[in-house]
Amino acid sequence: MNNDWKTLTDKMQDGSVLAMSRLITKVENREPGWLNAMQTIYGKIKRTPVIGLTGSPGAGKSTLTNEMTRVLYSMGLSVGIVAIDPSSPFTGGALLGDRLRMTDISTLENVFVRSMATRGAMGGLSVAARDVVKIIDAFGKDIILIETVGVGQDEVEVMRAADLVVVVCVPGQGDGIQAIKAGIMEIADIFVVNKADRDGTDQLAMDLESMQMLIPDKAYKEIPVLKTISTTGKGVKEFVETLFVKLKELRQEKSRQEKRIKEELVELVEKEIERFLINKWDKDGSLEKGVNKIVAGEENPYSIAQDMISSIIK
Amino acid sequence: MNNDWKTLTDKMQDGSVLAMSRLITKVENREPGWLNAMQTIYGKIKRTPVIGLTGSPGAGKSTLTNEMTRVLYSMGLSVGIVAIDPSSPFTGGALLGDRLRMTDISTLENVFVRSMATRGAMGGLSVAARDVVKIIDAFGKDIILIETVGVGQDEVEVMRAADLVVVVCVPGQGDGIQAIKAGIMEIADIFVVNKADRDGTDQLAMDLESMQMLIPDKAYKEIPVLKTISTTGKGVKEFVETLFVKLKELRQEKSRQEKRIKEELVELVEKEIERFLINKWDKDGSLEKGVNKIVAGEENPYSIAQDMISSIIK
Repeated sequence: MNNDWKTLTDKMQDGSVLAMSRLITKVENREPGWLNAMQTIYGKIKRTPVIGLTGSPGAGKSTLTNEMTRVLYSMGLSVGIVAIDPSSPFTGGALLGDRLRMTDISTLENVFVRSMATRGAMGGLSVAARDVVKIIDAFGKDIILIETVGVGQDEVEVMRAADLVVVVCVPGQGDGIQAIKAGIMEIADIFVVNKADRDGTDQLAMDLESMQMLIPDKAYKEIPVLKTISTTGKGVKEFVETLFVKLKELRQEKSRQEKRIKEELVELVEKEIERFLINKWDKDGSLEKGVNKIVAGEENPYSIAQDMISSIIK
Repeated sequence: MNNDWKTLTDKMQDGSVLAMSRLITKVENREPGWLNAMQTIYGKIKRTPVIGLTGSPGAGKSTLTNEMTRVLYSMGLSVGIVAIDPSSPFTGGALLGDRLRMTDISTLENVFVRSMATRGAMGGLSVAARDVVKIIDAFGKDIILIETVGVGQDEVEVMRAADLVVVVCVPGQGDGIQAIKAGIMEIADIFVVNKADRDGTDQLAMDLESMQMLIPDKAYKEIPVLKTISTTGKGVKEFVETLFVKLKELRQEKSRQEKRIKEELVELVEKEIERFLINKWDKDGSLEKGVNKIVAGEENPYSIAQDMISSIIK
């Protein structure tokens, strides 16, 4: 590990938030030496609980994350928040609108907020999220929240970095159906019906209860359905209590831990091979040559792909 | 190429729709010999125009596809339709609700409809869609439509298999913002405001016009905004006419063709390497061993990943 990395990891261990932020950026950018640095960091982690919060846009996830953080803070816990923002197609950067509301908690002592954009994560979004989580863990936070804005495949993927997934729904959005479509249902460990002062709250809660019966491989466990009004804080404390009970339960499931580690390992290997390929093609121009042959009608993509693969794989 | 594949490709060339369907299934399942079969099929393609239709749920894409098919049919064109259905989390299969409406066109002579589920595509959804498109092309259809149900990353990806992408919007759904979030805006070549008898049609059309000004790399070209009422067929003929004009324009852009072929090649290689890895791990158990070491705390994922990569890559 070169000096730069060593200085940063040392400083982070001494409690420097700035060093942690820089480390995250360097790892996100896959700067040379990142794999070694992550090995060092991995040695420091304490497997801090990681809570994922997802749900449809407008469900009030940011406000709920805010209120939840206040409750955790009042319990004396230090909190790390990873906020996944959809990328703007115009700038490539994150759309920060929803984050404005988070400024009030980010000024709390012991609360660290980090934004990540859904696009451009060098090693894939879930890999990147796992890296950030490990760095925050090694820094010493007591609990980490990952909050997403959308409900697409990106969000489902990033939730793989969490120990426990909270799906936030809201009455009157046809969330039940939306949740099924996006595959969110399968990853839920807790349902929260937010904005629970609205009409349709009880109906939605009942729908979420009854839908569970339809999922064969979730039949063995019950997914709690809780109600909150995050703007007033109502129900948030009860939600956090349930969360800790559920978390303890889930962390005892060995098969679940193994599955997560397996997914992580597969993604790490695949994304690194992808990066290797992109670098190789950049250098030797073999991709361009292949494309030109196909455009010229001299070769077909399938035979070119076969040649490329046998030139790479042992 | 073994006999099975040869019989099917021969029969398909003789016009057997059943043989085409079976070929698609075999290629989708990556049955041994598929790469060779696709090379043969690639030799028969005529680069039939491929039109992608995407947009938010409830925008009326299925009805529009129906009406569009009628117009194309009345022009004497034979049509292939690839319908991408979101997978059900309960069964793993496609949710066919939206397809019921399509039965009336699938009985038309010269119209071939094939459903594909968003999950479980062995080589990735866009790779799978490109394979199906090539088979239908080699069969001899004059035009191919790919229609999706959702607006997630899956849909954006599958649209890469199209020469021209139509984004279908509908007034009163806040589509403008949704489109930006999902990255749909970037891939649009034509916008259709469907259900154009609703309030807010003109506003939405104007929003779609003005939003284009904000996209830097699309500044050079104009994205037409058309209005249709697919339930009555109003505006569909004009839409199809614009579509052919735009298609001709886009197909003359060499850089666009190269980009598509490049993407295709990269995905083919990456997905085949992925399949290679999965097979290897199944056989030698190296993934399981790695996971066990991490679970036991003997090793970290980053060093295991590094070892795995160097055992695979030349």
